[in-house]
Amino acid sequence: MLGLMQDWPLLLHRVIDHAATNHAERPVVTRSVEGPITTTTYAAIHARALRLAKRLDREGIRVGDRIATLAWNTARHLECWYGITGVGAIYHTVNPRLFPDQIMWIMNHAEDRMAMVDLTFVPLLEKLADKLPKIERYVVLTDNAHMPATTLKNAVPYEDWIAEVDSDFAWKSLDENTAAGMCYTSGTTGNPKGVLYSHRSNVLHSMIACSADMLGQTSRDVVMPVVPLFHANGWSLAFSVPMVGASMVMPGPKLDGASVYELLTDYKVTFTAAVPTVWLGLLQYLESTGNKLPHLKRVLIGGSACPRMVIEKFQDVYGVEVIHAWGMTEMSPLGTVCTLKPEYSGLTGSARVEAQLKQGHVPFGVEMKITDDTGSKLPWDGKTFGRLKVRGPAVTRAYFKEGFDVLDEEGYFETGDVSTIDPHGYMQITDRAKDVIKSGGEWISSIEIENLAVGHPKVAEAAVIGLKHPKWDERPLLVIVPKKGENPTREDILGFLEGKIAKWWMPDDVVIAEEIPHTATGKIQKIALRERFKDYVFPMAVAS
Amino acid sequence: MLGLMQDWPLLLHRVIDHAATNHAERPVVTRSVEGPITTTTYAAIHARALRLAKRLDREGIRVGDRIATLAWNTARHLECWYGITGVGAIYHTVNPRLFPDQIMWIMNHAEDRMAMVDLTFVPLLEKLADKLPKIERYVVLTDNAHMPATTLKNAVPYEDWIAEVDSDFAWKSLDENTAAGMCYTSGTTGNPKGVLYSHRSNVLHSMIACSADMLGQTSRDVVMPVVPLFHANGWSLAFSVPMVGASMVMPGPKLDGASVYELLTDYKVTFTAAVPTVWLGLLQYLESTGNKLPHLKRVLIGGSACPRMVIEKFQDVYGVEVIHAWGMTEMSPLGTVCTLKPEYSGLTGSARVEAQLKQGHVPFGVEMKITDDTGSKLPWDGKTFGRLKVRGPAVTRAYFKEGFDVLDEEGYFETGDVSTIDPHGYMQITDRAKDVIKSGGEWISSIEIENLAVGHPKVAEAAVIGLKHPKWDERPLLVIVPKKGENPTREDILGFLEGKIAKWWMPDDVVIAEEIPHTATGKIQKIALRERFKDYVFPMAVAS
Repeated sequence: MLGLMQDWPLLLHRVIDHAATNHAERPVVTRSVEGPITTTTYAAIHARALRLAKRLDREGIRVGDRIATLAWNTARHLECWYGITGVGAIYHTVNPRLFPDQIMWIMNHAEDRMAMVDLTFVPLLEKLADKLPKIERYVVLTDNAHMPATTLKNAVPYEDWIAEVDSDFAWKSLDENTAAGMCYTSGTTGNPKGVLYSHRSNVLHSMIACSADMLGQTSRDVVMPVVPLFHANGWSLAFSVPMVGASMVMPGPKLDGASVYELLTDYKVTFTAAVPTVWLGLLQYLESTGNKLPHLKRVLIGGSACPRMVIEKFQDVYGVEVIHAWGMTEMSPLGTVCTLKPEYSGLTGSARVEAQLKQGHVPFGVEMKITDDTGSKLPWDGKTFGRLKVRGPAVTRAYFKEGFDVLDEEGYFETGDVSTIDPHGYMQITDRAKDVIKSGGEWISSIEIENLAVGHPKVAEAAVIGLKHPKWDERPLLVIVPKKGENPTREDILGFLEGKIAKWWMPDDVVIAEEIPHTATGKIQKIALRERFKDYVFPMAVAS
Repeated sequence: MLGLMQDWPLLLHRVIDHAATNHAERPVVTRSVEGPITTTTYAAIHARALRLAKRLDREGIRVGDRIATLAWNTARHLECWYGITGVGAIYHTVNPRLFPDQIMWIMNHAEDRMAMVDLTFVPLLEKLADKLPKIERYVVLTDNAHMPATTLKNAVPYEDWIAEVDSDFAWKSLDENTAAGMCYTSGTTGNPKGVLYSHRSNVLHSMIACSADMLGQTSRDVVMPVVPLFHANGWSLAFSVPMVGASMVMPGPKLDGASVYELLTDYKVTFTAAVPTVWLGLLQYLESTGNKLPHLKRVLIGGSACPRMVIEKFQDVYGVEVIHAWGMTEMSPLGTVCTLKPEYSGLTGSARVEAQLKQGHVPFGVEMKITDDTGSKLPWDGKTFGRLKVRGPAVTRAYFKEGFDVLDEEGYFETGDVSTIDPHGYMQITDRAKDVIKSGGEWISSIEIENLAVGHPKVAEAAVIGLKHPKWDERPLLVIVPKKGENPTREDILGFLEGKIAKWWMPDDVVIAEEIPHTATGKIQKIALRERFKDYVFPMAVAS
């Protein structure tokens, strides 16, 4: 027997409908790509999204078509997502920081029919355009007055193009499982993989994000998503902020400390979100100017592990609560959030920071487990680490055009991370699965050794890789880049690590290097590092 | 094209799975029907719900079967809901405060196969049992030591009955639209109507309830649902509290001021919910004892309009924030919640209370409109009142066994309430649609006049009904019950109302009565009142 409740499919247009009806005049502020700071409202964004949907419909865009966006966080980009999904098409946010070859590969693989592009990225696309045969039209996110001369095919200025129609349009009626968004993962190896969100997954994921123990934003908040919409589905903020009717501040192209500070202060931002690098820039700016953050209450930090110093400075110096989080493109992306359960909420000082350094706990709607290599579940004791696997309505089951599910027999997706989970359900990443070092049947966390090594006053950067070893299968090699003008020795470093890690975790050798290779998104490219050291032979002493 | 996200049906077992996995040891405290205060955990409730599901499965209970519960709020009642829905059956909470004939009618209409009943209600069911032929077994929610001698068919003590199996059971795999719960509305007219919730509607509704601007509960809260689970689906609390892993305190059978106070204080409750009557009892108790509420932070008040005095006392005297809410059984039940948007959050003093007297705004997932009698939408100006209609994934489309949808052409459900909506989306109930008085083509709110009339120092209770009038179609008649020992006159009352309402709203007459008829749930029975006055003739003076 089925229930007798209403059929109300979880479609994204309902989010902006809700905001426009119930929070019509709430301000959405943008630092525009053209320069000036502009202000609009949810009611206006809603009307313009309808206009875009009508324009796209007239253009022949149909349900399931992909439309690329290469754009900063602006009200225009936001309304594009709603306009595109409202006509049944798929927003495909492309990360413009990728290498041009990757961008080309991704856009061709996605078979994008149209690209909506900020002024900033017109030159980039002009260089790639002749290798993007499927794109029928480029829409430049500006008005006629700012439209550059361009060779891009059928290029039009967005404002004038959507002004050709009115907003009298009915959102397409769709099955809630219809594809809505697409985001490619920038893996460190192989070709990027396309993650395909549905309306349902985006709506459910955003509802989860709104719960008080997740992001907990309210209509009284002023939220600034510094994390770009093109980074891992924009951390849900394009949906979960309008969903509660909070005010938004969109930072556009300027993410440096001074620019971020200006918006935080002038628009009384109460909640913001970005990767640690952005916050390092802001904290540096604040220190050099002596400025404070009187309005900001909470900052969400994810994308990579948040350094202890960032948590301490925000909380102790500026009175801003840090919420550490973990997720991935394949998870829409929120996985865990480090709000404090009663077991930790009473902690103070460094014990509290220690808890906050964990990546946090899952909300309802995300399930996780850690397993060994055979798939057997490992205990939640805070010490044992294993492969982290996740399940939920906003977690990927397959990649675009790959035609097979990537889940285990219980339906879990393997994250590629290795982590512990403590008895209270707090997950802490210890490594990437492919970087963990397998020595004598046990696992060594490369990240833990790296984090310790960068604590040495003469070390600028550190990477640990596992290299083949005749007896132990693999043993760790520590590669360090010294700080400018410093000349640390192998013995300095090993001496520094002694007593801080188990004896059998001690690197078998330390190599001093001038630089360590990085991916386009700034991650250490361990695969290249392993390639560089593939013929390296350990000195016999340490581990045998 | 469909998205490529996981298939993760919204099933209720996932809620208790989540709580048991991620908040395993969180306390759930109960004032038991047997007397002592007991404490258990989500892990234990989860294991016992599995045990119940296995016992029900062995008993031959199948997907779609209805199981009645007549029970107070206890951990046992909570685990029954999860056990029943986990085997695919439907919890049917029966309000034991209804008249016995109504209970019998409802249980027969629902065709309940089994009844799970607290000790309190065994005598009640013994009297009805021979008129409940479909019930195959009565499970008394106690253990063998407390089991009464009873004539109830196949009666067993719950504890011993579920102890016959272990908890090794797999929740049934179900379509998320499968029926999960049932609750009859206690209408003031006609037979009760069965509302049939699905797993999906209950899960979505609970996710909505968890958002920071709705109930906003966190894992750090201690939540006491004083509102019974049998009242309008228990206001979602059986699901939305475990969903965030908050601690629970279940008040069992004792809802008087002293008992509620004892639990609030001894267990440091931070958030509680009930109808105004309960809070009047608590406030009276606090005043007479001089006790305070040092732990309680927020109180959710709904079920009927919250008197101003209750809001003021809680906030001004006890420092407890009041959250006024509105909903109905047909809405799962939450419709609007009066948390403050930025337009109101800056208010203080009586202006703030004025805003809080409104029933609040809708969250994402509830849509509302007000219309005139022809179905045309009315403006959100805070003045115009019209028929309130709602839409959403947790709103009824049809009643059990009635075989037809009750929605308008846009898919909205008519609530039967008449309300205004202000420009910020705050809804305020002005009347029940069937009680509104239609005079000369305009509407008069019976409730507004009643609320004013009870402000007269000599009036204990007031009811306004519309009676036929040759010229104006209908005109208001005010019926009042004087306070003990008082003898107010028609002129006293009309004089008191003068200047407080529009002239054409003034009642054409005032009748002094000894009592006003009420339904089993305490609402004024206006239909009986209209029947009593059907031959009444207005004096000609006032309105003509």
